Amino acid sequence: MNTDILEKPYVVGIDIGGQTTKMGIVDMRGQVLSQTVIRTDTYDDVNLYIDEVAAALEKIITESASEGKIRGIGVGAPNGNYYTGNIENAVNLVWGAGKIPFAELLSKRTGGLKVALTNDANAAAVGEMTYGAARGMKNFIMITLGTGVGSGIVINGEVVYGHDGYAGELGHTCAVRHNGRVCGCGKTGCLETYCSATGVARTAREWLDMTDEPSVLRSLDSISSKDVYEAAKDGDKLALKIFDFTGKILGESFADFVAFSAPEAIVLFGGLARAKEYLYQPIMDAMNANLLHLWRNKIKIVFSQLKESDAAILGASALAWEL
Amino acid sequence: MNTDILEKPYVVGIDIGGQTTKMGIVDMRGQVLSQTVIRTDTYDDVNLYIDEVAAALEKIITESASEGKIRGIGVGAPNGNYYTGNIENAVNLVWGAGKIPFAELLSKRTGGLKVALTNDANAAAVGEMTYGAARGMKNFIMITLGTGVGSGIVINGEVVYGHDGYAGELGHTCAVRHNGRVCGCGKTGCLETYCSATGVARTAREWLDMTDEPSVLRSLDSISSKDVYEAAKDGDKLALKIFDFTGKILGESFADFVAFSAPEAIVLFGGLARAKEYLYQPIMDAMNANLLHLWRNKIKIVFSQLKESDAAILGASALAWEL
Repeated sequence: MNTDILEKPYVVGIDIGGQTTKMGIVDMRGQVLSQTVIRTDTYDDVNLYIDEVAAALEKIITESASEGKIRGIGVGAPNGNYYTGNIENAVNLVWGAGKIPFAELLSKRTGGLKVALTNDANAAAVGEMTYGAARGMKNFIMITLGTGVGSGIVINGEVVYGHDGYAGELGHTCAVRHNGRVCGCGKTGCLETYCSATGVARTAREWLDMTDEPSVLRSLDSISSKDVYEAAKDGDKLALKIFDFTGKILGESFADFVAFSAPEAIVLFGGLARAKEYLYQPIMDAMNANLLHLWRNKIKIVFSQLKESDAAILGASALAWEL
Repeated sequence: MNTDILEKPYVVGIDIGGQTTKMGIVDMRGQVLSQTVIRTDTYDDVNLYIDEVAAALEKIITESASEGKIRGIGVGAPNGNYYTGNIENAVNLVWGAGKIPFAELLSKRTGGLKVALTNDANAAAVGEMTYGAARGMKNFIMITLGTGVGSGIVINGEVVYGHDGYAGELGHTCAVRHNGRVCGCGKTGCLETYCSATGVARTAREWLDMTDEPSVLRSLDSISSKDVYEAAKDGDKLALKIFDFTGKILGESFADFVAFSAPEAIVLFGGLARAKEYLYQPIMDAMNANLLHLWRNKIKIVFSQLKESDAAILGASALAWEL
């Protein structure tokens, strides 16, 4: 960070989801000074959407008295490409078809502020390195356990973007080679079909169908991962087994990730990571059983330390410090 | 490369194997000016071994008239740690128990020449990037298909060493999760149990035992991967199927590696890579079938372009340009 930090001590973080866009003004210690939320899906013209983003930004800049003190804007968005600043073929965004030169459009619309853009999992990794559980770490892998499984890989203090800007799709590595579950991506057996929030609910439904095992989950019409978590907290045996199974698959996959980049730690974030008391031990056991001797019992599994309500904004904002 | 390149236009490459140590003087274009081989296993005291290395080096330096023109020494060695310069617990080296501060010892013994050290697969990656098939590439994965399966991962033009210096053990990622073959590392299902030269021979023996399929391989007392290759060249159907199977497992694993670092290419090297005419298509088919849509038909599989007799020396030597 250079010397104009005193003049421009704030950054903007914008997290774009399919339905809502969260944005906030953040200081160097990761305090969110002011934040707001707008809908992402009101317009299918990206220019109209960006007008709304700019108007909302203006409001929180005024609120936090940070006019002229913004160093830059960081954006986390589905299919965000760090190299090009484009959002490319983001099927979850109503205005996201084709190649949207998002960073460029937003920079123009905000009087030339610099904009850095990447996908949400990479943003989360930078956020965790800047403000959270990975502070001081130069080599770690961020795994986001949400609706899907995302990942952000940090090597030598830098996010890995790869040749094309899309590195770090560990949710779509193969966890189950034969007769694996069908994934939304068109492949089968992807890690995210088992270990996302959706995957956990899917395991619950499969196991309830396939066995007679008693469980409080049987009484529910539809099952979410949160239901499985609540059942586990009540001591439901099937729910506990589901977390053992989920943790085992995560741990097996993590062992292969370690063989790739030898990280100091794997950092877990996202809704499902709240079930850490049920996931930690099965992950550790399966990971260590599948690691080469030299790494056994040496790789840490840590859980995000960012306040969940702020985490998406913080992650995106952290990108802007590097501009 | 800095300006003293004219004064010191050569580097030394030393490749340490369990039985022999190859060394050579190399220029910037990857020409080996002079080379020699000594035994690695004559002494179990590393100091006596290093005396021999130094004496052999002196000889080839004189031969190539490169006295005072050496920029540094690069060493590829089993369990070589780039960060520490140590060779640590290398069971294949008679003098390799414990932590050997090899780079430091060799530097002292050669009048203070700088020494860089890493394992052989990482050295091969740097060699390929400096002189070979990966010239100009900033993101690629080197896979060495020899007695084992080794790997060197390059991201943003730099070899990935990870938190501890041992990143890139892709030969020990899990290729077959259930009932996989027992690996020398103590785990099961490792990629190298299927896709090394040894793995190919193992497949041949298993399949000959398990089936009645006719094959010229049945007449052999012991089978090497070279025998399988020769049989395939003669049109032996079982041998061809063995390469299909080997390529399929490689391709499936490569798809997961691509999801990690989004490389431009995967570069294959080593004895087994000679069978490229039988491996290329099954690798490509299996890799593309297991890649996310965004990478399908975009990742290159290329074969090493280094002369095999020089490759080990070249790989090690390339490290020294970065000193």
